[in-house]
Amino acid sequence: MMEKLTDTEREEHLNPLLADGWAMVEGRDAIKKTFEFKNFVDAFGFMTKAAIWAEKMNHHPEWFNVFKTVEVTLSTHDAGGLTENDTKLARKMDALA
Amino acid sequence: MMEKLTDTEREEHLNPLLADGWAMVEGRDAIKKTFEFKNFVDAFGFMTKAAIWAEKMNHHPEWFNVFKTVEVTLSTHDAGGLTENDTKLARKMDALA
Repeated sequence: MMEKLTDTEREEHLNPLLADGWAMVEGRDAIKKTFEFKNFVDAFGFMTKAAIWAEKMNHHPEWFNVFKTVEVTLSTHDAGGLTENDTKLARKMDALA
Repeated sequence: MMEKLTDTEREEHLNPLLADGWAMVEGRDAIKKTFEFKNFVDAFGFMTKAAIWAEKMNHHPEWFNVFKTVEVTLSTHDAGGLTENDTKLARKMDALA
């Protein structure tokens, strides 16, 4: 089972994400980002690629889509907060977007 | 442009959906339903099928997914409320789920 990120890991893996469009969710140890695309096909195309990666990683996002916007929240339910799985999936989503 | 459903159309097209798991959204002329699946692959598989139909219909849902749950909200932004597009997409989603 994944452990919550340590302070050192947060500096190394979380801070770069927070400098790159991700933000902490208020009241939760979770990060969120809103991705904007040209249209629905591009937005859902991103979701499809991310979904396959999420399933491979056995780590799934919370996400909301309306038309060309995708709002993603990442946290690890079993660990009660952010783990390496979240920072890895966040980086993968940034690469796919 | 789609017109909002008339009272007669609501009786004919909306009421059967409200009797079948859909509910009105508080404070909006919109309907919502929560679909539960066996796992993420089934949930996202449903979303993929529905996404292709939505794009064909040029009418897109607002939806939230976490793991095996998909929460769908339907309304027609341009019409400021429910239209025939929403009841059609709702029936299609029920058929796909």
